Amino acid sequence: MPRLRLALAQTNPVVGAFEHNAAGIITATRSAAEQGADLVAFGEMAISGYPIEDLASRPSFLRAAREAVETLARRLADQGLGDVAVVVGHPDGPFEPRSVDVTTAPSAIAQNCASVLQHGRVIATTAKYHLPNYSVFDEYRVFIPGDDLLVARIADVDVAIIICEDLWREGGPVARVLAADAGLLLVVNASPWIADKDEVRLPLVTRRATESDTIVAYVNIVGGQDDLVFDGDSLVVDEAGTVLARAPQFREHLLLVDLDPAPATDPVVTEDVHRVLLDTPDTTPGSIALDGQRPALPRDVAEPRDDLEEIWNALVLGTRDYVEKNGFRSVVLGLSGGIDSAVCAAIAVDALGPDRVYGVSMPSQWSSEHSRSDADDVAERLGLHYRTEAIADLVRPFEDQLHLTGLAAENIQARARALVLMGLSNLDGHLVLTTGNKTELSVGYSTIYGDSVGGFAPIKDVPKTLVWELATWRNRFAAGRGETEPIPENSITKPPSAELRPDQKDEDSLPPYEVLDSILDGYITRALGAADIVAEGHDPDTVAEVTRLVDRSEWKRRQGAIGPKISGMAFGRDRRLPITYRPQQYR
Amino acid sequence: MPRLRLALAQTNPVVGAFEHNAAGIITATRSAAEQGADLVAFGEMAISGYPIEDLASRPSFLRAAREAVETLARRLADQGLGDVAVVVGHPDGPFEPRSVDVTTAPSAIAQNCASVLQHGRVIATTAKYHLPNYSVFDEYRVFIPGDDLLVARIADVDVAIIICEDLWREGGPVARVLAADAGLLLVVNASPWIADKDEVRLPLVTRRATESDTIVAYVNIVGGQDDLVFDGDSLVVDEAGTVLARAPQFREHLLLVDLDPAPATDPVVTEDVHRVLLDTPDTTPGSIALDGQRPALPRDVAEPRDDLEEIWNALVLGTRDYVEKNGFRSVVLGLSGGIDSAVCAAIAVDALGPDRVYGVSMPSQWSSEHSRSDADDVAERLGLHYRTEAIADLVRPFEDQLHLTGLAAENIQARARALVLMGLSNLDGHLVLTTGNKTELSVGYSTIYGDSVGGFAPIKDVPKTLVWELATWRNRFAAGRGETEPIPENSITKPPSAELRPDQKDEDSLPPYEVLDSILDGYITRALGAADIVAEGHDPDTVAEVTRLVDRSEWKRRQGAIGPKISGMAFGRDRRLPITYRPQQYR
Repeated sequence: MPRLRLALAQTNPVVGAFEHNAAGIITATRSAAEQGADLVAFGEMAISGYPIEDLASRPSFLRAAREAVETLARRLADQGLGDVAVVVGHPDGPFEPRSVDVTTAPSAIAQNCASVLQHGRVIATTAKYHLPNYSVFDEYRVFIPGDDLLVARIADVDVAIIICEDLWREGGPVARVLAADAGLLLVVNASPWIADKDEVRLPLVTRRATESDTIVAYVNIVGGQDDLVFDGDSLVVDEAGTVLARAPQFREHLLLVDLDPAPATDPVVTEDVHRVLLDTPDTTPGSIALDGQRPALPRDVAEPRDDLEEIWNALVLGTRDYVEKNGFRSVVLGLSGGIDSAVCAAIAVDALGPDRVYGVSMPSQWSSEHSRSDADDVAERLGLHYRTEAIADLVRPFEDQLHLTGLAAENIQARARALVLMGLSNLDGHLVLTTGNKTELSVGYSTIYGDSVGGFAPIKDVPKTLVWELATWRNRFAAGRGETEPIPENSITKPPSAELRPDQKDEDSLPPYEVLDSILDGYITRALGAADIVAEGHDPDTVAEVTRLVDRSEWKRRQGAIGPKISGMAFGRDRRLPITYRPQQYR
Repeated sequence: MPRLRLALAQTNPVVGAFEHNAAGIITATRSAAEQGADLVAFGEMAISGYPIEDLASRPSFLRAAREAVETLARRLADQGLGDVAVVVGHPDGPFEPRSVDVTTAPSAIAQNCASVLQHGRVIATTAKYHLPNYSVFDEYRVFIPGDDLLVARIADVDVAIIICEDLWREGGPVARVLAADAGLLLVVNASPWIADKDEVRLPLVTRRATESDTIVAYVNIVGGQDDLVFDGDSLVVDEAGTVLARAPQFREHLLLVDLDPAPATDPVVTEDVHRVLLDTPDTTPGSIALDGQRPALPRDVAEPRDDLEEIWNALVLGTRDYVEKNGFRSVVLGLSGGIDSAVCAAIAVDALGPDRVYGVSMPSQWSSEHSRSDADDVAERLGLHYRTEAIADLVRPFEDQLHLTGLAAENIQARARALVLMGLSNLDGHLVLTTGNKTELSVGYSTIYGDSVGGFAPIKDVPKTLVWELATWRNRFAAGRGETEPIPENSITKPPSAELRPDQKDEDSLPPYEVLDSILDGYITRALGAADIVAEGHDPDTVAEVTRLVDRSEWKRRQGAIGPKISGMAFGRDRRLPITYRPQQYR
């Protein structure tokens, strides 16, 4: 008979919403207890949301976090859930306002913690040791590293508890887990999703399980938080590398699994291991059979998704959570008939339903007939609210009064459209979605304060070539379910154009998108220099021009909307480069 | 007779402009050599500019930096300057493109170095040990810490060379300097200016000098780089705490000083000290007298400036360098007749001269008579290019077509003005300056894609109350020199108004600015919670409302222009907070 029933609760916290997050934790704990769980684990910072960034330096925030954890422990007990052991992530640090001397170096005051709660009390707390400070992470900036390993004994199992990055790095906690001879390694995570992450996460968890001969339980949060999307994908792998349980991605889930780890032995006492003894719940409400045996759990192992399906779901969840968590009722976006706005509209409808999505066609004198009909078509396919606002009468007074020509005249059209969308947003409270893709953002092929206007950019980390792939995938997915294909075929196949002057085509100004995306992958994602990219077979003049465009567009990107990170190198806090920058003999 | 003639060269590097920066280094070295210097020291990253941010992770950048340092050494020798010892800061790291695995943790590859050059060669290199990773600094993200102290012997003086943060922290290099028994501690800096920084920098340098009984020479770069302003203020303090030399702030300068430090002794050999022996130039071109004696140097000790004068100069330098280093010929800004735009115009004229500044008055139906006449007045006082573009005919078509009312109608006016400025920018290549102050940015009292539009925001870190003080100071400064006061008295004294509806005043929507700035200082600069601010004597409802406004404006700030940081907590990379954030029981 398995000795330990473990629940991994994949919740979707909101940063700063302690009460909301705690309520979700209580609900999940009740459900787990009803199903006979001994131990329920939540993700990293599940009570505060993640990442909290510089809120970690705000004593009033830390005070609220501490109160939230203590209140949670008491409430669980008050509601008859005090017997179940609960592991939950939270920030911790000093509460008193500091007198800040702004002229000297501030130091981190907080720690990134996980606590074990039982019987209304906080039994023990541990802090993260390895603080990621690369990519989007600034943890070394705001946290002090922990210095011990927490091992909690429950149901005669020694459960070692570590936090996220501590699983990924050799040394520190992972080495101590080996020495501590734990039966179960519980890892509490807030690990943002990027494409292909599941291809490294499962192998890592498996390797740690087999090399330490310990069952590894990995619990992750889920949901969108600004530019990050957490996919969940909580999982349990046994000492032989077998996946015992795996939660679905991109949704909340309570994953239950019965485990029979190696029984606890008398520990070698070491200074850097903090051991606590928990009570094992001997009765739990709900479904315990009369003989004290728990009915067996159904197997719960989610199948991995197709790569494009994962990306689509990440974009949908990132968009939905930005809208919901910031309290918007609806979104508005321009529909040009092109592929980018069609894909963004489809994402928005998948995220919010058609009744919360407002599309606006804003034709100009240069708009082709197909751009209007394709915009009408996507609106009809998606069933969203739709209106047309021609911009000719809005643009003409600017052209006439300022004698605009050339680029200035092209940009005024994009900017008049922005004013229409912002006007509708101000009237009706819509969030404006901006539909630029990563390729455009990379080379600055957009009008700042024009098509870049908006609070959220669903495809800002999606290169143009991938936009097409996603459109095709989404249509195929619909067709497979007998549903209307959301993206007009014509939007996918026609040559892209900004339509800001007669017969304009993107490829008049830019290399073919396949070439462009390949160069950008080298320059941006792989941080290659121009010479290195040329050595991979690209034309030197094209590489010089593309890298020049990327460098000179940094000021525009800085003023751009956030959007879901899906790649290993997204614009925003993932890639921090100067605006003022005069490269010479290299790029 | 002093044994060592030291030159501290306070140069203004441009990030990435290796050739330009090296040319400035050669010019300064020649001038120092002509004046008989033995040793010429430049600032941290003087050859690459600072901060280089994630360029430090780009092997092609590191390759260019290495080539630039080696080329510099050779060129100095080729030009007859090989005898002089030169200390220069630069990044260093591996050159080969890496295959980046985007799914795992990238690690820093570079170091923040200073090298000693002589006789055409790089004699020795040391790397920074303490890597600042707070405030605007991300050095732990991109650099590997150094692990030894470099001591170069020249003219029978042991010169210990450390980099910036290593002076500020106890332990590490500072402790090793004490043990190494150096005669001179040379600190190579890129230390951004903030208000009151000189009040901590000089005491720190003095304390290090007296506590280690070592002369301390502190050399800093100067100039604007994006949102940072480096003020120079290079200085030399002797063992008794006397300031021997001090360079003026906010301009390039070559500071020469004769020193007679304790002679070098036979060192105790320790593993963590790297010692090199340099040749002492026995002849230098130029002004050496026939008997081999160098003529005495004039005393060069700049007087500190008044606080407001320092701030004004920082804003002017930050604005000028953003314009110059990014290759703009001119700037354009809206002149409303209000204090913010008048101060920005005065800064721009001080930075660039009136012929490179274009002001535009854009009255609406709600603009008061005084707003037009005050705008005319500031334009005339400053002598800048000036035109009027009424917006009524631009706004009306939007109002009519979209039936705009209320906030939507107010915002369309600000956004029509933005389109005018961007149109003029597109026609004539002007950089658009946006004139919002820190108080407005804090509470979101501005129209996004309206008055927030622009590439640079000269007063974005200046609270409204300080804007008034600066205006008054600048007028007093002008009056003291018998010049025209640049800011109309009426712009300073009239009640602030956005003039987007009839008889609108800022204080209809906001608390009085003295109260508001005090609350914002608590919430933003000192990171207090609402309860802490109330405890300081503020009205609870006002505090609740102000902190709510600050939190909900984060998305606007993220899309704002950069501008010079003058405070200990500026918006931008200095203050990293989530947009999606739902504070509840605290703030």
